[in-house]
Amino acid sequence: MKAVIIAAGEGSRMCNTLGSSSLPKPILPLLGIPIIERIIRASKRAGINDFIVVTGYRGEKIKDYLGDGKRLGVKIRYAFNQQWPMGNAYSLLAARPFIEPEERFFLLMGDHIFEPALLHNFLKHVEERVGKSSLPEKSQKLHFLAVETSFPKELDLDEATKALITGENITGLGKELKQFNGVDTGLFNFHYHIFDILTENIENSNGSISSALQPIISNNNLKAFQFKNLFWQDIDNRTDLEQAKRRLLKRLVPEKDGMVSRYFNRHLSLAITSHLSNFPISPNAISVASFFMCLGSAFLFALGQPVAASLIAQLASVLDGVDGEIARVKFQESPFGAYFDSILDRYADAALIGGIVAGSLLAETSSPLLILLAGFFALTASPFSMLSKEKYTNLTGKEYIPSELEGRFSYLPINRDGRIAIIMVGGLLNQLTLTLIVLAVLTNLQIIIRLIVVRKQLLCTNKNIK
Amino acid sequence: MKAVIIAAGEGSRMCNTLGSSSLPKPILPLLGIPIIERIIRASKRAGINDFIVVTGYRGEKIKDYLGDGKRLGVKIRYAFNQQWPMGNAYSLLAARPFIEPEERFFLLMGDHIFEPALLHNFLKHVEERVGKSSLPEKSQKLHFLAVETSFPKELDLDEATKALITGENITGLGKELKQFNGVDTGLFNFHYHIFDILTENIENSNGSISSALQPIISNNNLKAFQFKNLFWQDIDNRTDLEQAKRRLLKRLVPEKDGMVSRYFNRHLSLAITSHLSNFPISPNAISVASFFMCLGSAFLFALGQPVAASLIAQLASVLDGVDGEIARVKFQESPFGAYFDSILDRYADAALIGGIVAGSLLAETSSPLLILLAGFFALTASPFSMLSKEKYTNLTGKEYIPSELEGRFSYLPINRDGRIAIIMVGGLLNQLTLTLIVLAVLTNLQIIIRLIVVRKQLLCTNKNIK
Repeated sequence: MKAVIIAAGEGSRMCNTLGSSSLPKPILPLLGIPIIERIIRASKRAGINDFIVVTGYRGEKIKDYLGDGKRLGVKIRYAFNQQWPMGNAYSLLAARPFIEPEERFFLLMGDHIFEPALLHNFLKHVEERVGKSSLPEKSQKLHFLAVETSFPKELDLDEATKALITGENITGLGKELKQFNGVDTGLFNFHYHIFDILTENIENSNGSISSALQPIISNNNLKAFQFKNLFWQDIDNRTDLEQAKRRLLKRLVPEKDGMVSRYFNRHLSLAITSHLSNFPISPNAISVASFFMCLGSAFLFALGQPVAASLIAQLASVLDGVDGEIARVKFQESPFGAYFDSILDRYADAALIGGIVAGSLLAETSSPLLILLAGFFALTASPFSMLSKEKYTNLTGKEYIPSELEGRFSYLPINRDGRIAIIMVGGLLNQLTLTLIVLAVLTNLQIIIRLIVVRKQLLCTNKNIK
Repeated sequence: MKAVIIAAGEGSRMCNTLGSSSLPKPILPLLGIPIIERIIRASKRAGINDFIVVTGYRGEKIKDYLGDGKRLGVKIRYAFNQQWPMGNAYSLLAARPFIEPEERFFLLMGDHIFEPALLHNFLKHVEERVGKSSLPEKSQKLHFLAVETSFPKELDLDEATKALITGENITGLGKELKQFNGVDTGLFNFHYHIFDILTENIENSNGSISSALQPIISNNNLKAFQFKNLFWQDIDNRTDLEQAKRRLLKRLVPEKDGMVSRYFNRHLSLAITSHLSNFPISPNAISVASFFMCLGSAFLFALGQPVAASLIAQLASVLDGVDGEIARVKFQESPFGAYFDSILDRYADAALIGGIVAGSLLAETSSPLLILLAGFFALTASPFSMLSKEKYTNLTGKEYIPSELEGRFSYLPINRDGRIAIIMVGGLLNQLTLTLIVLAVLTNLQIIIRLIVVRKQLLCTNKNIK
């Protein structure tokens, strides 16, 4: 299905607050990716590959930036709306030559970002709903608007276009609506038929889409796709842009994070990501940097510099979160990146333990046998945290989330973030042998905990299969 | 859907060859599981949970063995066919009181074993085919027979009931058929209506099901479910039983096996499995035994007994295949068993490397630094073989099969079977430090090979997603 993106407006409220910015709003960068590129990339994930961008104010800037879409792996064509100051309804009409009669298409706003799942679910909903009405005459009268019904606290209700949903129909739409139970997200799905309706009614409207749609609202032909708790945001001004940044960053913290990561590392790594995202640095480059910092830390441990070593190790652990964050926020996730990162992490872990063993042996403060044994058990058990999670996922199809499955034990610092925190504390206190012993005990204890947890989970799964 | 299993015959050809055996054929054990229990367990995996077993000759023995089915997690009821010497068609009629009018059911033979996928696919085929004919009058006339069309070399064509398939219809069925293009597997799917047809025609038949079905064959109402290359076997005599044993064992070798395992270990492990399957030994017990043998081997390495140590390690590696074989051949696979086994294997690997490091250090034939470094790299890289496979499966949804993905590199002995073979050879030659170096080099080399292979595979996958 095609998508029409309206990117014709001046974005005057944005310009005022941004001062001298002369870029049209859709190509303002948000965590390293222009707003309209976010919209196209999210749509692509939802299964949309063919775009018509309607430009107006400084349209050539948008065209120069996006081009024909090859770089993004999609097709982009441009419609120019000369009458752009008169309103969005005129921009929608400008897209008419690109849509076939009988064709359905999405309408997206060039300043409304959203997560891929939102458009994906919307698409499924439309396909199901249209599939039900077997008569073409009926289906061409069906138009849809995605309506948020959960009213998140970030929403500015004064600025929002409100919607009143009655059954499956939208019976009221507008900024001034007194009675409402949802918020207009600016994501529409139309039949080509909409152009005829617009042509007839546009003169009696104020040029906004919501006013031009009043006739189909009165005829109960605008249907609501209702959703809750999916991310979208309208970006009108600088405040919205900052809020979008904060909300996008917050969404980067994975559920399976360990405690040290959740309450400490992520605060730092998100701040780093917020800055680094503006530069063309690939996630894999960050993984490699984190790996070499661990190698450096291991050498410093071996050379008898535990304080410097431990601080570098902890910094590397923070940076180990940044690669994934950058990848997710810049649509650069790749399975190979995840694979590569996991291998580097295992080598980095081993190097740190090796460095501590070497430093401990050379310091000659404990028995070599004790150091070697503790090092052996720590090194043996250290890949298990990852190994057990991967195996669990393969056996059950579900992600292993310690905080859900391990109860109080999930507070033990035995994920990678926790193990490196132990190394940091042990290094700062210059207690290398003790650090090895603590690591060996905790990581091997973890294997027993996981064995018990996985056994319980898999026996439940078995029952379900039977 | 219910399944009727005919287990009424004397199995005279089996008795003759087995000499004094007085057990009815369906409860003769085949790799530790009686034939009829194999049929019920395979049917359960295919989604069938409700069975009617038709008994005749020594029926009480079968009833005593299977009971109400609770032990197998299914429901089993019994129909007695007093006229069992007169033929299978009479046995089928004896099941009539257990089937509701309008109900469909499977008919299975108590001496025909099959793999779950066969019955599962048959079930899907019937559901689709019956779903298409919307009129109940038509659907009640539809009956189905599963027909093998690949003629495997193990098949004895003289003994087989042959089938002629024309379009979707079976137009000929019998042992003496001259022209045929398939083989009757004895797996039927009938509508209740079949009982009326049998009642009318049984007197004119010779009592066999194929002759009693001639009227529906003439009316083109017996449809073929054609399949190829799925395992099933008719067990008539001692030779068939031995052949079934061989074919079941052969099916136990997983595709992802390493070279040492494929060309050496499996020959031994299948022989062990063939014997051990007759005893009530759980797969997990075998995993634990293999683990303790590795621990023992590690201690012998440390104590300077490399020859004994290496032989025990190799034996443990063979036994490491037996747990999975026993589990698969006795329907005892469990996800927890797989998880538990993989953890024990990782500890066993680490213990072996630790034991060789200790033995090498104590023998004082090489520099301790060299030994410790080689041990460190071998220990670090040893879990990667498994780790990379699990991660790959999670990222792609496909199994990592070295022989398909790694080309010539798959001949390197770097899977667990290969690593332990290296340890055996190194131990027999008393070259412990060299063994560690070879292990360290090969396992770390493997990580690089996998990185390249996975990168290529994942980039292909990415393209497909786009």
